[in-house]
Amino acid sequence: MPEIGYLGPEGTFSQEALEIYLGRSDRTDYTPRAFSAMPDILHAVTDGKIGEAFVPIENSIEGPVNEVLDMLAFEDGLMINGEAVIPIKQNLLALKGTAVNGITTILSHPQGIGQCRNYLASYFPQVMLKPVASTAQAAREVACGEAGLAAIGSGAAARKYGLDIIRNGIQDNGNNTTRFVVISRHDSAMTGDDKTSIVFSADDKPGSLYRVLEIFNIWEINLTKIESRPAKDQLGKYIFFVDMNGHREDEDISDALRMVRRKTSFFKLLGSYKNGGAVK
Amino acid sequence: MPEIGYLGPEGTFSQEALEIYLGRSDRTDYTPRAFSAMPDILHAVTDGKIGEAFVPIENSIEGPVNEVLDMLAFEDGLMINGEAVIPIKQNLLALKGTAVNGITTILSHPQGIGQCRNYLASYFPQVMLKPVASTAQAAREVACGEAGLAAIGSGAAARKYGLDIIRNGIQDNGNNTTRFVVISRHDSAMTGDDKTSIVFSADDKPGSLYRVLEIFNIWEINLTKIESRPAKDQLGKYIFFVDMNGHREDEDISDALRMVRRKTSFFKLLGSYKNGGAVK
Repeated sequence: MPEIGYLGPEGTFSQEALEIYLGRSDRTDYTPRAFSAMPDILHAVTDGKIGEAFVPIENSIEGPVNEVLDMLAFEDGLMINGEAVIPIKQNLLALKGTAVNGITTILSHPQGIGQCRNYLASYFPQVMLKPVASTAQAAREVACGEAGLAAIGSGAAARKYGLDIIRNGIQDNGNNTTRFVVISRHDSAMTGDDKTSIVFSADDKPGSLYRVLEIFNIWEINLTKIESRPAKDQLGKYIFFVDMNGHREDEDISDALRMVRRKTSFFKLLGSYKNGGAVK
Repeated sequence: MPEIGYLGPEGTFSQEALEIYLGRSDRTDYTPRAFSAMPDILHAVTDGKIGEAFVPIENSIEGPVNEVLDMLAFEDGLMINGEAVIPIKQNLLALKGTAVNGITTILSHPQGIGQCRNYLASYFPQVMLKPVASTAQAAREVACGEAGLAAIGSGAAARKYGLDIIRNGIQDNGNNTTRFVVISRHDSAMTGDDKTSIVFSADDKPGSLYRVLEIFNIWEINLTKIESRPAKDQLGKYIFFVDMNGHREDEDISDALRMVRRKTSFFKLLGSYKNGGAVK
């Protein structure tokens, strides 16, 4: 059975999200497989070792997942063929019997810490914050470590590593959701409710982004996202990730993208895929 | 003498950059003061404890410094009154006598690791990467830690913690520069070569970003940066940071910004300041 890669180890939010996605979409044709680093997951797709990857692309609070955007933009052979918007709930995890006022160090992935910044400043102003590679690794370090440690992470991580959830739902923003994309070597056929993603670099001239957006305005194409990233070759040059409603085989989208391609110095179609849930 | 805050401890790139900036601008009216966390620096400005803060706002490879952008957008009383573009050179630091093939763990700030991702994948594929709070903290942990540790960091960090530079200039991209801004409670008077920064949220309607950019196009104002960040209240809503050439008291800028303010649901002037070096 083909495999779908995610950022492990077991107990990460990615694993929780993948289970929700597979349940929602009623897909039983793939086996989940954990990878230890984001580039490894996507390289396994380009190398044909796995069929698909399920990776986060943006969070409603912390913003884009830069590593994923950069690989989509600059590496060949990766296309988006699906998406899912999953709510994220952060919890404070510790060994059974840990008193809240005995906590000296809190570990998590930098995004986990970022999502609870106000909570931590209010309730744990003196505690040391230690960024680690994943929320699951944070939970594992707490499970194996000395007293006084706590982790910010998922309920799945608490179960996996035998920790207690000593505070739940500690994220600053109740509306904390992450958008995941399914990445494969091809995109998806039209379903009638689709989205299309592109990335481009406008010419390095005043008003060039404006002139690209003008194209979408003329064809009355609804953009659901616009995100800038540095072009990496110089400060002040950007590439833009744009998502729109519609499939690349729709006549309007097809015509508009032909024009966008003509007006940009770098253009890449990232794929069309079924709309994965209203971005409310 | 008033103080200018930066992200410490001593030996960070921020300290190196601040020294370069103070030398370049021939300013002797401020004493540098290290802070241990980014929010503390900016809160010290709003509270009047220090006169200015010198903080990174974007890197040519890793992109925006989210914490700084979010505080500028959402907290009152902070304005940009200066900028400086500083080249960043990453080095591999270790205890004297460390053999390259004896390195088992490499520590750095997540941006330091990100800036050397390809180098690390090529030369240290098996090594554990450990993100910590700053490049200086990484150097300190290496200086105090067991054998086999190395840090990615500045030459200043090597000197401060008595480490050897065992590989220099290991960043993936030769064009690795960081733009720093000087943040104060007020912005700067016109010099004739100025920039102005704003942040706004376009209405949640198709084409609304396009309609704001149209305003700059009509007044022929040159935008030097456009950067999106999540609005935080829901996935798919964005705020936009825009920098332009000119001072807010220039007639064209003043008229255009009055119109932008009218067309946006959220608008904040972040300040006008002397152009701090060509963004080539």
